[in-house]
Amino acid sequence: MTEAAAIDRVVVTPLKIIADDRGAVMHMLRSDAPHFAGFGEIYFSVINPGVVKAWKRHREMTLNLCCVAGAIRLVVVDPISKALREIDLGPGSAETYRLVTVPPGLWTGFTCTGDAPATLANCASIQHDPAEADNLPADSDEIPYTWS
Amino acid sequence: MTEAAAIDRVVVTPLKIIADDRGAVMHMLRSDAPHFAGFGEIYFSVINPGVVKAWKRHREMTLNLCCVAGAIRLVVVDPISKALREIDLGPGSAETYRLVTVPPGLWTGFTCTGDAPATLANCASIQHDPAEADNLPADSDEIPYTWS
Repeated sequence: MTEAAAIDRVVVTPLKIIADDRGAVMHMLRSDAPHFAGFGEIYFSVINPGVVKAWKRHREMTLNLCCVAGAIRLVVVDPISKALREIDLGPGSAETYRLVTVPPGLWTGFTCTGDAPATLANCASIQHDPAEADNLPADSDEIPYTWS
Repeated sequence: MTEAAAIDRVVVTPLKIIADDRGAVMHMLRSDAPHFAGFGEIYFSVINPGVVKAWKRHREMTLNLCCVAGAIRLVVVDPISKALREIDLGPGSAETYRLVTVPPGLWTGFTCTGDAPATLANCASIQHDPAEADNLPADSDEIPYTWS
């Protein structure tokens, strides 16, 4: 049996925004979702315009990422094949309001592509633990991606 | 043994915002928190300035509420004693960036007190189910609170 390449196990799930004149309800994650891998912690990363937060690789954590304010470009890179995916996220359109489930073992980074700070939610399968994560600088030669 | 009044079982927990010049990391909820009652669903409610979203009472769901953008006033009312709590929420200050855990059985409502839309996160113990929630209009005579 051949295991699928890690990059092929990234799951992108469209999410609903139910808007009215009072505001909106925006879905993120339910425990009966097929991509739900357990609940460890929910936290938020706020990122200022033009800033890059990269690169991080979790060895145990499954990430569930969605952008609840502003606009973000998420980049996911397979350390073996160097295959990469760029995924634009944000509640500004139905197309970009979506959940990205990242299995352990992939490099991830993101940048704020709008002109206001953006907020990325991570509903993670385990609690934050720096011992299970690796870091590389955003301009590392090991990752064939150039942040613009 | 006398059970504590439901309003006394509302738990308010200070949350950390770890800010730097790139943005911030904002905590919300971990599965080892004493107030964690299980994970059913995480979703967001966006509310426009001056709007009131009230009243709702969950019979089974424990709510975990924090405001991740803008400013919100949350009001929690005990249907028996009519005791109430007003709690200001938002990431604008360390004092108001906090988690409110609301056990089942209490009326809750909230309003946007800032001049921009606000976003309230609810990391709930069960999945959304309209059958376990009651609703009253914001100006109901049953609840002794006047939204200003």
